[in-house]
Formats: sequence, C-alpha cells, structure tokens
Amino acid sequence: MLYFIGLGLFSEDDISLKGFNALRDVDVVYAEFYTAKLMGGNIDNLIDKIDAPFIRLKREDVEDSNIILDDAMVKDVAFVTAGDPLMATTHTELYVEACRKGIETKIIHASSIFSAAPGLSGLQAYKFGKTTTVPFPDDNFFPHSPYDVIKSNMDMGLHTLVLLDIQAHIDRYMTINQALDYLSKVENQRGESVFPSDKIVVGIAQAGSDKPVVKGGRVSDLLDYDFGSPLHCLIVPGDLHFIEAEALIALADISENLLENYL
Amino acid sequence: MLYFIGLGLFSEDDISLKGFNALRDVDVVYAEFYTAKLMGGNIDNLIDKIDAPFIRLKREDVEDSNIILDDAMVKDVAFVTAGDPLMATTHTELYVEACRKGIETKIIHASSIFSAAPGLSGLQAYKFGKTTTVPFPDDNFFPHSPYDVIKSNMDMGLHTLVLLDIQAHIDRYMTINQALDYLSKVENQRGESVFPSDKIVVGIAQAGSDKPVVKGGRVSDLLDYDFGSPLHCLIVPGDLHFIEAEALIALADISENLLENYL
Repeated sequence: MLYFIGLGLFSEDDISLKGFNALRDVDVVYAEFYTAKLMGGNIDNLIDKIDAPFIRLKREDVEDSNIILDDAMVKDVAFVTAGDPLMATTHTELYVEACRKGIETKIIHASSIFSAAPGLSGLQAYKFGKTTTVPFPDDNFFPHSPYDVIKSNMDMGLHTLVLLDIQAHIDRYMTINQALDYLSKVENQRGESVFPSDKIVVGIAQAGSDKPVVKGGRVSDLLDYDFGSPLHCLIVPGDLHFIEAEALIALADISENLLENYL
Repeated sequence: MLYFIGLGLFSEDDISLKGFNALRDVDVVYAEFYTAKLMGGNIDNLIDKIDAPFIRLKREDVEDSNIILDDAMVKDVAFVTAGDPLMATTHTELYVEACRKGIETKIIHASSIFSAAPGLSGLQAYKFGKTTTVPFPDDNFFPHSPYDVIKSNMDMGLHTLVLLDIQAHIDRYMTINQALDYLSKVENQRGESVFPSDKIVVGIAQAGSDKPVVKGGRVSDLLDYDFGSPLHCLIVPGDLHFIEAEALIALADISENLLENYL
C-alpha cells in the first residue's frame, strides 16, 4: 500500500487527522521536502509521534521511484509532501507508476495554496484564471510567461494566482518584492500596461499560519514592503465585484480610494 | 476570537490536527452545512470529542451574521464548514464583517476540491483555467455560462474544473450524469463543438474518500456510468501534455486509443 499524504500549508499540525492516523500505522515514511517544505512549526513534533522510520528523500530518490515503489509492494508506505499531494509532476508520476504496477494507493488530501490564497484575499475562487509561477531569473532565463498569463486572465476579467519559485534544497524562496520587480521588468520591456507601477496587487505571506500577512496596494507601494518570512505568493486581481473590492479593503488593507471605481 | 475552520473534503477525520485542537479549546462551534457538507464518515465522532456546544446553522443564521459575531466579541467561537474555509461568498462576508468589527480571527485551512480534483485526475493544477458550476436547471433557468467557460478555457488549451450544484438543505446533489446531460443540451442548442458526444471528460466522485471514483471517457460513454454516491465533479481536459495523457490512462481508466493524438 502506498499512501500519498499531504502535510498542508504551514506547520506540522496542518496534516489531517486521517493523515496523522495513517502515519502511525505505516511501516515507513518517505518525505519529499525539496519541491516545498513546511516553513512553520517543527516537523520533529510529528516525527516523534510516529513509530515508523521517517526518511527524507533527495531529489534523485523520487525521480528514481523504484525505491519507494519496491517498498510499497511489500509494506505500508507513506509518501508525504507539503501542501496537498499530487500538485507536483514528480508526485503525479509516482502515483501513475504505482497504479500501473497494481500497488494499492490512498490519497489523503490537505490544505493547499490553490484554495487558501483566494480565501485569504477575499476574492472569489471561481473568478481565478490559470495559475502561473515566477521563476528565479538568470542571465539566459527570463521567461515572460507569468506576464502573459496575467495578461490573458486580465483580458477576461479574471484574477491570477502567482506562485513564486521555491528552491527548498538550497533554502531559497522568492519574495513578493522580487516577483514585483520581475514583473515590472517585463512590463518595461513589453509596455503592454499589464503590470504598470500603479497596478493593484495583493501579496500573501505565511498562508496557513496564525498570522498570515495579506497586504494589497499599488505595485509601487509594495516593492519595498516587508512581507516577512516565506512562503510568499501574489494575487493580481482582475475585474472586481464590489463585494470583492470591499473584501480587499478589509482583508488586504487597501485604501478605499484605490478601489473607488469598483465600489 | 473567531476561528474559521475547514473540515476538509469527505469525512470527520479530514480536519487538520490544528483545527481539531482549536475545536477542543473554543467555547462554541457553529457549523454551516447548507452550502456543503461532509458526505462520508460520521460528524458525531468529531462532536463527541468536543466539549463546546455544536450548533448547526440555518441559512438565515449566517446571512444574519450578528449571532456569530456578537458571540465572537466575548467568547472563542469556531465557524466550521466542509472543505477549505472562505470558499463561499457568505463565509467571506462573515470574515470581512469580523475584521471590520475588530474581532480577532484565525483561519485554519483544509483540503478542497480545487486542488484535490486536479491531483486525482493526474492533470497539472497550473493548467486549469477558470472554474465553473453547473446549476440545477428549471423552466426559466438554464444558463449557458458553464459551456462558455469550458469554451473559453479550451480556446487557450486549459482544463476546466466543473463543480456541480449542491442543495444540501434538501439533500440534493447534482450527479456527473446530470451535468453531462446539461452540457450536451447546451451543445445541441449552440452547436459550437465545445461539448460533442465524443468529447473526453473525467468524472470524479467521493473525492477525499479511501476509494474515490475517477473515470474518464467520451461524454457518450459516461452519460449512464454509475459514479456512486455524491459529491461529484467533472473535469473537461484542454490540451494534454503526453505525461497528462498517460496519467489519464492510468488514473482515469481512459482507453489508450481515445488519447492516441496526445501520446
């Protein structure tokens, strides 16, 4: 049996009761913390309550899935990840391989930024378009795809959830400020008024914690705003229903005059 | 203090450890089970472990939010809902009102169909466009909006998560079959080849349970397929990466020849 168990958004107590009970029953736990990891709490509090060995995988261990699958043929194995399971391609591939080999599987879901971010912002989840990710740029890598996705969603009046690059294996997490800078640079190159300095955006940090930071405003207002520790993400609102505009004022501390067109 | 606590997707053990611990600490629990409710397990198993009174709200109780807010001014109150909190407009409005009144809030997230459905299907979450909902039609109410959303997403190659109407207060839950029939009728009226009978779709039922049903195929193959008990939802795939096509074959039991263009 192979369990895919989500640890949820932030700390070791974001796992579900179902997931926790499964972890206490399995023979071995494999944890994948390089695509994402819990930024709050202390995972050792969870590990201490589990009898089974808790093995932290390296990237190559998941990509060579046989280690996990061979074990799951003969034992009860849990594969745990931050967030909801099966959001990353490598996890889906492991799930597909397990099904192909006839290994019984159970998926135990958990909280995810895909629903948490809309909820925290007060924007309606069904008004979000395609999600995009801003990657860490380098000399030969500066894709405009996040800008294109925002533009395409805007054209349809839709909000965009913008995830920010995570390189957990080297403890490098993109900040909202870096993402705003990235998208402003694309705007400077493209000049299509998708991401001007007076664009209203909402930054969300530490989603899932007791005190998530939800702060909106113009890009120029937030370029230097301190959102605190990772993980960060960004929402670029599309057209706003007045109830959404009122929510942004109350929840994201946006001043009323910036949204007066929607009220 | 007002906690918004998600109960997660399916059964009473889908709540997070954090949410469970909060429920044991609060003075009163208000449960909103008319926009959605847990279809599996037994909520009484959770209620039995909580000392605080567990009050099931009627629709008018949430819309007149003062009952909850007045209590939260002087006590520790939990507002619990199925899924992730703040996905429904009425919940967001309660959150906004609480913030306006200066009531301290904590949001405790949980699993949601918004991430679970992509995960279970094997399709990549970031390739989904806007979500839509198929409502129960009546004589004067047969909106084409779900069809329009699918069409718009398709034009951009994106997948569509189609949620199905829930009227939990009268225990009425739309089935995948009803949704397929609805969308086929729109296709007959509009004839824009958005939802022809050979369109490939994926039905998902009992997400969050130990044995969710994930079954794909042509619309004509699934119109009479028995997906079992609610809740149901539907995914209309857009363009498929070959890895997604392979995932659909393994996870959604779609025959290879239907997807050969993508392999």
